[in-house]
Amino acid sequence: MKKKIGLSAYEQNNQIASENRQFLYKKGIFAINIIGSPGCGKTSILEYTAGKFDKSFGVIIGDVKTALDSDRLIKAGNNFSYAIETGGGCHISPLMLKDKLNEVNTDIDYLFIENVGNLVCPSSFDLGENFKVAVLSVPEGDEKVRKYPSLFLKAEAVIINKVDLLDFMDYDIDQVEKDCLTHNPKVKIFRTSIKTGEGFPEWFEFLSEKREHF
Amino acid sequence: MKKKIGLSAYEQNNQIASENRQFLYKKGIFAINIIGSPGCGKTSILEYTAGKFDKSFGVIIGDVKTALDSDRLIKAGNNFSYAIETGGGCHISPLMLKDKLNEVNTDIDYLFIENVGNLVCPSSFDLGENFKVAVLSVPEGDEKVRKYPSLFLKAEAVIINKVDLLDFMDYDIDQVEKDCLTHNPKVKIFRTSIKTGEGFPEWFEFLSEKREHF
Repeated sequence: MKKKIGLSAYEQNNQIASENRQFLYKKGIFAINIIGSPGCGKTSILEYTAGKFDKSFGVIIGDVKTALDSDRLIKAGNNFSYAIETGGGCHISPLMLKDKLNEVNTDIDYLFIENVGNLVCPSSFDLGENFKVAVLSVPEGDEKVRKYPSLFLKAEAVIINKVDLLDFMDYDIDQVEKDCLTHNPKVKIFRTSIKTGEGFPEWFEFLSEKREHF
Repeated sequence: MKKKIGLSAYEQNNQIASENRQFLYKKGIFAINIIGSPGCGKTSILEYTAGKFDKSFGVIIGDVKTALDSDRLIKAGNNFSYAIETGGGCHISPLMLKDKLNEVNTDIDYLFIENVGNLVCPSSFDLGENFKVAVLSVPEGDEKVRKYPSLFLKAEAVIINKVDLLDFMDYDIDQVEKDCLTHNPKVKIFRTSIKTGEGFPEWFEFLSEKREHF
């Protein structure tokens, strides 16, 4: 990227995000920015999606180090999986995504962008996606929405994952949903488990509906 | 703080960290910077500690929003518990700690500083602590050390928490220990559970030994 003289870093990021958004729109790709803590199940959800979601899609996965998650998804049958190593960075930046978009196969309907596992920093960056989804998980505890509000102000959808563990843990899922709705009254919430498949039909239907209004 | 003209932000942070370290040393307080993902059990470990660790200690807890964790610790019987709300920030900064140290009761032997739940950003900041401890947890998955290396290069100790869940999850704890040792061959590793109490006697003994060489 040529440095835009006179623009702040914030403005530069937004300009690149806008370029990404235009690129994706022209290619007919609907992009979802997936944000959650380390270990909440972002990659597992995409592994599950690879076997069940009846649409063409690709995945770009950001990690501080390694391409482990991307490799997992290739094993799961998703050949269109690309890794971004941030090299210490705590989030994917719009420029990292832009560089990666130049490499990828764009003959797809959906692009899932799995951000670096982090409930704070990634929420501050528009990458050019169509919407952000926040992923929570039952073992993390039920106060995360209150403690990390910025993501939940911006996410159009929240996935509460690993609900198969609800019987073993003290997790007030109804309160978590209330907390999400306090931050965003229009948020769509999905209760999912890759062990039981619960919640995924509704999540896939939501993705299809969202793309219709693309 | 007066702005130090001519110092970079990095140098300013290190200078304040150094001031914090001197302040703590003069007061005879041994400080531990606790870093881990949201939901790995940092606060639960401190709750457990409040009932079992036979030393005087205080706690400063950083969260993006709310004083929920600090309130939990007061309920657990630790009256010396202070909250830092970072107001969106993804880590405790040396200056935030310095401001808080002016408020706190310093008649203690140990200070636990629970950082914002985040495996990436807090590892970049020296706050003036004696050492950093990384907290992992079994439900997060066993590849976190490889994916988030910076913390494990700096942590003198690693707590692998929620080991009572090992029977229910596919988590290769021996591999996790090897990964930790790859990053820091001298790291001390503790396998803990607040449900069984496992690992805590060894952790407390380690804290006592460390303070002897203060």
